[in-house]
Amino acid sequence: MAEAGGAGEEFIVTPWKVEGKVDYDKLIERFGTTPIDDELLRRIGKLAGELNHLLRRRIFFSHRDLDKVLDDWEAGRGFFLYTGRGPSGPMHIGHILPFYLTKWLQDRFGVNVYIQLTDDEKFLEEERGLTLEETRGWAYENALDIAAVGFDPDKTFIFQDTEYIRNMYPMALKVARKVNMSWVRAVFGFDMQTNIGMIFYPAIQIVPSLFEKRRCLIPCAIDQDPYWRIQRDIAESLGYYKAAAIHSKFLPPLTGPTGKMSASQPESAIYLHEDEESVRRKIWKAYSGGQPTAELHRKLGGNPEVDVAFQWLYYFFEPDDARLRKIEEDYRSGALLTGELKLILTEKVLRFLEEHREKREEAKEKLHLYKYDGELAKEMWKKIHE
Amino acid sequence: MAEAGGAGEEFIVTPWKVEGKVDYDKLIERFGTTPIDDELLRRIGKLAGELNHLLRRRIFFSHRDLDKVLDDWEAGRGFFLYTGRGPSGPMHIGHILPFYLTKWLQDRFGVNVYIQLTDDEKFLEEERGLTLEETRGWAYENALDIAAVGFDPDKTFIFQDTEYIRNMYPMALKVARKVNMSWVRAVFGFDMQTNIGMIFYPAIQIVPSLFEKRRCLIPCAIDQDPYWRIQRDIAESLGYYKAAAIHSKFLPPLTGPTGKMSASQPESAIYLHEDEESVRRKIWKAYSGGQPTAELHRKLGGNPEVDVAFQWLYYFFEPDDARLRKIEEDYRSGALLTGELKLILTEKVLRFLEEHREKREEAKEKLHLYKYDGELAKEMWKKIHE
Repeated sequence: MAEAGGAGEEFIVTPWKVEGKVDYDKLIERFGTTPIDDELLRRIGKLAGELNHLLRRRIFFSHRDLDKVLDDWEAGRGFFLYTGRGPSGPMHIGHILPFYLTKWLQDRFGVNVYIQLTDDEKFLEEERGLTLEETRGWAYENALDIAAVGFDPDKTFIFQDTEYIRNMYPMALKVARKVNMSWVRAVFGFDMQTNIGMIFYPAIQIVPSLFEKRRCLIPCAIDQDPYWRIQRDIAESLGYYKAAAIHSKFLPPLTGPTGKMSASQPESAIYLHEDEESVRRKIWKAYSGGQPTAELHRKLGGNPEVDVAFQWLYYFFEPDDARLRKIEEDYRSGALLTGELKLILTEKVLRFLEEHREKREEAKEKLHLYKYDGELAKEMWKKIHE
Repeated sequence: MAEAGGAGEEFIVTPWKVEGKVDYDKLIERFGTTPIDDELLRRIGKLAGELNHLLRRRIFFSHRDLDKVLDDWEAGRGFFLYTGRGPSGPMHIGHILPFYLTKWLQDRFGVNVYIQLTDDEKFLEEERGLTLEETRGWAYENALDIAAVGFDPDKTFIFQDTEYIRNMYPMALKVARKVNMSWVRAVFGFDMQTNIGMIFYPAIQIVPSLFEKRRCLIPCAIDQDPYWRIQRDIAESLGYYKAAAIHSKFLPPLTGPTGKMSASQPESAIYLHEDEESVRRKIWKAYSGGQPTAELHRKLGGNPEVDVAFQWLYYFFEPDDARLRKIEEDYRSGALLTGELKLILTEKVLRFLEEHREKREEAKEKLHLYKYDGELAKEMWKKIHE
């Protein structure tokens, strides 16, 4: 696959690969997106009544047309949310993060959420070696994790491509007719060895952004941006809105501040199903910004910028700004030892996972609402998109 | 699009274009198919109890694995038939011809028939400029013409890709994962300008050949052969049979003995909906093997080999061999004038079209059986192919 930015640069971000220490300012430049500035944050806060810490701390740091989404909202035209998951295995904490922002946006603006499970895509990615039966099995498992986040069952539609394809196919054809091989080669690096399913697949991923004749806002990790660039070039010619997006940084891997968490390195991530012993061990071994000995640490202090435990608190696990600031200061001064910091995170992660699993159990009874029987789902099964 | 056979040869046959005077022996060589020989014909005749004139006269002249289909039949493993239609406009007589052989095979062997209406493909072919609404409209119109042929409503499933896609998509993905861009470039001439829907489409056309775990026999015009070459290379690795095929020649265009009938040349074909005046006019103006004057014709005789009216009787409209031979002899000797020969054909075509239209009217009441409510159709809507 081709790499955005080309050779010679020190980091790589594509929908399939994140390598190196990502410079997010450079990424904004490379991808041609817009930083989320103070002014925009204030506006969101005013309209939403509050500001989620994921926004406040610039975990979601970049966007396309988020200002227009807010214009539409103010003008009464509304908008809708679309996000998704490639069901290739169990979900880790990095995977679930964008769903929390999505839920927050749904709660605050009362809008519809569409969640695509791309069981077709993950089967077509040959190097994964997954059967269709496996990706569909993961689609079910992942749907439970997503449902556990607590979306509104009457305003949320979770669908899986191989099941919902009949409703999407006419629109996928209309998208596909506007996109040629040369274009997907440029955007995704597809070549002569790419299978014809993968080549077609971007059309399927674009369709949900055209589910309503309103602006679609897509919360996603920045590596998914290439899909939406194609969408934005063709949507208006199909009579729809260009998709807006809000892009997150990558939750740093436990193994250190470069790349992103990856299934091929189990030590880099904590999975939603992971047991206590394993969580304790992984965080204990996590990349630290502390000094080699407690004595030195007390004297010199730690570096929260590269400390993964601190970064996880910052990204997700300590939403309270005052408490986070206290932790940061204590760590920097040396008052808080690396082991202590890690324990703070460990307890928070364990509590989060426990709660998640309870909600996941409850979701088993509710999943049919998201997929088939809730108000939005029922409506969607009646609709052929074209 | 690339052209099978390459430059310098005097005729071209691809799924999109037939040009020049087709040399069918050379085509067998080029495509690597097998001629239908006397021995195979005798065998079909013995098993079927008779021989259709389309076989007897080698209108269906070439095959792949037809002998194995008969082996399977004799061994009690059975087989099934698959054919289709690209709904890009009204059907002419050349389009309906393979359906008559298909019906004959169904009657004689009592097997299931699957008929695919590729409304997706005809939309994706950009140069046609058809909307999806239009190709679906034609799918309905064409389905009536096909139903008029009189297939067994409990053993025939007529389906349209955009409607039946949910049932086919998992299998299409499995096919697509085995076919890369390089392969479809070589087979179909797809290039960087080809849209990603067209690139994926061959997977959709291959799926019905995998509807049953038996050998599939595909009656089709020889230009469709490339699709089945890919099928034959991947079917066994998916646990299915290589498709067998039986290939027809092209009914010669009224305008002369080269190319095939084409929508871009309305004078070359007679459409199933065409009125009497127009049929009379087109046949009257058809390319003739006769002499310039009646006097010369009486003296020198005509040439049935290039005479389109005679060829149409040979291909389709005079199934009785004795009567056809008499016409041929009289024409060759000069006893039968060109005008007389054309009138014989005209009356037969008009009678055929009249009967066709009656059956087409009746088919309006029966179409639901082929599409949804007949025994086979009901079974097929319950089945997800994977």
